[in-house]
Parts: sequence; structure tokens; C-alpha cells
Amino acid sequence: MLTEIEELYNFIHPLAIKAGEILLDGYEREEKQVDIKGAFYDVVTDYDNKIEEFLKGNILAKYPLHKFIGEEETAKNHNITMELTDAPTWIIDPIDGTSNFIKQIPHVCVSIGLSINKQIVLGVVNNPAQKKLYTAKLGQGAFCNGKPIHVSNCERVRDANVAYEVSLLHVHNMANKHIKRIYHVGLHARRLKGPIHSMLAYSCVVDELCMVAAGNLDAFYIEEMYPWDCAAGSLLVREAGGVVKNPFGGPFDIMKPDLICAGTEELRLEIENLLRKADKEQSVGGGGGL
Amino acid sequence: MLTEIEELYNFIHPLAIKAGEILLDGYEREEKQVDIKGAFYDVVTDYDNKIEEFLKGNILAKYPLHKFIGEEETAKNHNITMELTDAPTWIIDPIDGTSNFIKQIPHVCVSIGLSINKQIVLGVVNNPAQKKLYTAKLGQGAFCNGKPIHVSNCERVRDANVAYEVSLLHVHNMANKHIKRIYHVGLHARRLKGPIHSMLAYSCVVDELCMVAAGNLDAFYIEEMYPWDCAAGSLLVREAGGVVKNPFGGPFDIMKPDLICAGTEELRLEIENLLRKADKEQSVGGGGGL
Repeated sequence: MLTEIEELYNFIHPLAIKAGEILLDGYEREEKQVDIKGAFYDVVTDYDNKIEEFLKGNILAKYPLHKFIGEEETAKNHNITMELTDAPTWIIDPIDGTSNFIKQIPHVCVSIGLSINKQIVLGVVNNPAQKKLYTAKLGQGAFCNGKPIHVSNCERVRDANVAYEVSLLHVHNMANKHIKRIYHVGLHARRLKGPIHSMLAYSCVVDELCMVAAGNLDAFYIEEMYPWDCAAGSLLVREAGGVVKNPFGGPFDIMKPDLICAGTEELRLEIENLLRKADKEQSVGGGGGL
Repeated sequence: MLTEIEELYNFIHPLAIKAGEILLDGYEREEKQVDIKGAFYDVVTDYDNKIEEFLKGNILAKYPLHKFIGEEETAKNHNITMELTDAPTWIIDPIDGTSNFIKQIPHVCVSIGLSINKQIVLGVVNNPAQKKLYTAKLGQGAFCNGKPIHVSNCERVRDANVAYEVSLLHVHNMANKHIKRIYHVGLHARRLKGPIHSMLAYSCVVDELCMVAAGNLDAFYIEEMYPWDCAAGSLLVREAGGVVKNPFGGPFDIMKPDLICAGTEELRLEIENLLRKADKEQSVGGGGGL
């Protein structure tokens, strides 16, 4: 298995670099063709298709029996039921952060994860606008541009840089829940004395996971995502020493990848408790009519 | 006046580049000395002082009668009463985005504005981690690395990338107001069909203003800031063709720099109306007990 992972890593590494070059070519263009997906807050460009076809074509040429779970693939097939089997399965997001891609904001990534026996064994993320290539192999640590990366050791929300996708407010029936969660996580530090606490939102889940892995962020919370948003990033966070769990402490499930991830279990648990508090207020009726 | 501005621009330009080099030196260090200011959510490092002293020393050596309004200056003098006179006054933030500086997140800037006769006539912002030097002279357009920049032409929140500092939740007595404002600005797009609408938060007001000037963001809202956060950036947005006003449509006042800025007046006005709606809910009591 180790040899197999090594071989697959050596195979995908140059493809991830090339995929980043395609992304960067589009990123640097002033005018881009914009196509509208079902979910109005998302944007697809022909670069998405170009990168996915490049990766899929090259992978299938060498490994014709490998499977795929990918954003464009799924969208094109109008098939959002996905099944993860034991077979080697590439879980790919050709461009995460498409609104950033269009607006030239440097939080845009190609994300490539590989699952074998239902376990993510490889993760490669390329953020070419920041010239950062993140890589992880199961059990062998996480790297950025070949240099080891580590999560932060922050244990308290009051000291933490926490990313939280404010744009989740758009998701149907999530607005009320999410605004209360933002309130509780964001407000928490005010009652204590702490130097750094900051709430960030970059509209790029893949980059946010990498930023936790590299210690730029101390924690990140997300829900309502797809496997391709979180496959590579979740391995990177874990291999960098961090924790990735379901928001309420259960095991992380790549096929329903709601998560809180953090550099430490202490910080993750504190965020979990703040989310519980927020949700309780809502259900008990303390939240009023916002 | 034009010749004077040109001369002052040619004087400050190389100093802004050098100041960015000092910042980058600190940004790239793994471990940084952290000192805690009065406001717990802010962080000062000795690089703040180093950059401010470098700029102030050079400016005073050439222009001994010029005045200063600056973050570190003010903090050291325990004097938060500031007066803007007609004299040439440099309004400087040596490092905006100090938590990003510490965590190596590339939204960190040196901001240098110059006021003459109470009008901002020069703005230079250096974001060295992104290798971007933004410059503007009154009436002569805005530039990034010497290339003209322009705001976006987005006219509707439903299509807009809007930055909003979620961390304002920390500000005493602002939490309730702000969470309602985030809710209304963030939620608005859900009821309509639009492709891009995204809420961002970077914890760096100076960079967020530059991102509006360069069209990366369509709009940005902020309150409770200081002159040094907004002096250079507000000129950049205007010189790039955008609008900068008080949140409720009045003239922008650099000494009380609450603002909504946007690429178009239509977008700015729509955000103003969403803030009004949010505030009305609060005061009329529709907001309940969040």
C-alpha cells in the first residue's frame, strides 16, 4: 500500500502543477465566460471543465479502472447521488473558489483527493495565485511547497483566527441557524481578554482547510459541502496534526462532509459547544424573530 | 498644488516600498513578539513601531513642519483626540491586518495617506505579501504596480462580492446591531437569482478598500475605524471610479471614517438600505432576543 501511494503521488504531483497553470491562466484573464449553475451563488467557468477533463483524461489513460467523484462530473450528469466504493476513487474540485477566480482574489485552488478502501490516502491542493502547493500522503505528514506544515496550538476561541463561511446564509433554510452560530462564535471572545480572535471568510473551503493545516487559521467550520470540497483538505489538516470531526463531535464522513476542524481538540470542542449553544437558543425560542 | 503633490509622491514612493520590505521581513518570520494593546482584538508587534519610525523619521528629515496622525503614535501618547488641520498631515498605518501579519495570511498592508487642506491628496498602500503597491494622487486615477485600476460596475447586492468585518461583533455594544446587518446584507441575495453574491471578511480594512478599488470586491462596509485605516484607501477607491460615503449616505469624514464604499452608487445605496432595514428591525423590536 505504501509503495502504491508513493507511485500514485509521483503520478499526480506533476498533473496538479499543470492543473494549477491552467487555473492561473484563467485567473489572470480580465474577462471570463461565466455560466450559471443551479445554485445561484456558485459560478462555473469553462476553466472548471478544462481542468477536470485534463486531470480525468490523464488519470484514466494510466488507470482506466479508477473512479471519480467530481463537481463538474456530477453537475453534468445531473446525478447528485454519489457512492464511495473501495475502488481507488479520485475526488476532484477543479476550481474551488470560483467567485474568487472570476474576481482575481487569491483564494482559489485545484483540489485532488484520492480514496482507497474508503479512506483518503492522498491529498494535493494547488493555489497557484499564492504559489502554494499543499501535499499529504496518509501517515506521512503535510507539506507546502515541499516544506512540512503544522497546525497551530491555539486552544481557545478567544485567541483564535476562525473562518466561517458567512455565505452559508444563502443556503435554503440555513439562514436563521447560521446567523446565530456566527453570532455565538464571533461574539464569544468579547467577554474575555484575548489578543487575536478574528472571524474570517474567504469563500474557498479548500483554501480554508489548507490554511488550518498550515496554521494560518486556528479553526474552520463548514456545512452543506460536497466531498470534492473537503477530501484533500481534510487529509492535509489531519496530516498537519489537526483534528477534523463532524460538527457535533462524531466521525468525519467524506460523503457528508460537515465539519469543524482545528489545530487542537480543545479549540474544536469549544466551537462545537458554541454551535450547540446557538442551536439550542434557536430551538428553545430565545432567538426571537430575526 | 499639482507640482507639490507630484514632488511628495516621488518622495514617498520609495519609502513605501522600503516600508513594505520591513513588513515582509517580519511577515516571513515564524515567531513574532506580540504585545497587547488596549483593544484586545488587536495586536501590535515591534514591526509596527519599526515601520512607523522609519516613515516618520524620513518624512520629518525632509519636511520638519509636516504633521502626523498614526496608530502607534496615538497609542503611545495615550491621546485618542486627534485634530486634522490644513497643514500637510501624514495619516499612516504601519501594519493594517496585524493578526494576518502574525498568522502569515497575505492581507497585510502599510497604508500612507497625505492630507493637505483637510483633503486626502495622496494614497499609497503596500501589500508586500501579494506584491501589490497601490498608488493614487488626487484627480489622477488609481494604480496597482503602475497599472491603472478600476472599480467593478456591479449594481446589485445579488451579484456582488461584499466584504463586511464580522469581527466588529467584538466591539462593545455593536454585536446586536452588526449581526442583524450581516444577516440582511448576507441573506438578501437568497430571494433572488444571482450568480456570485458572496460575503467576505479579511480582517484588513486597508486591503479591503484596495480590493474595492481594484474591482476584486464590489463593495465594502466598515464602522468604528480610525483615520489611518481609511485615509489612503478611500482616495484609492474614489480615484478608481468608486463611491465612498458615510453609511447613511452623508459625506465621508476621514476623522470619523464609517463608510460604505462600492464600485457604483446603485450598489452602495442598496447596501445602505439593507443596513437601514436591519437597524429599523432592531429599534422597532422585531429582532427579538438574539
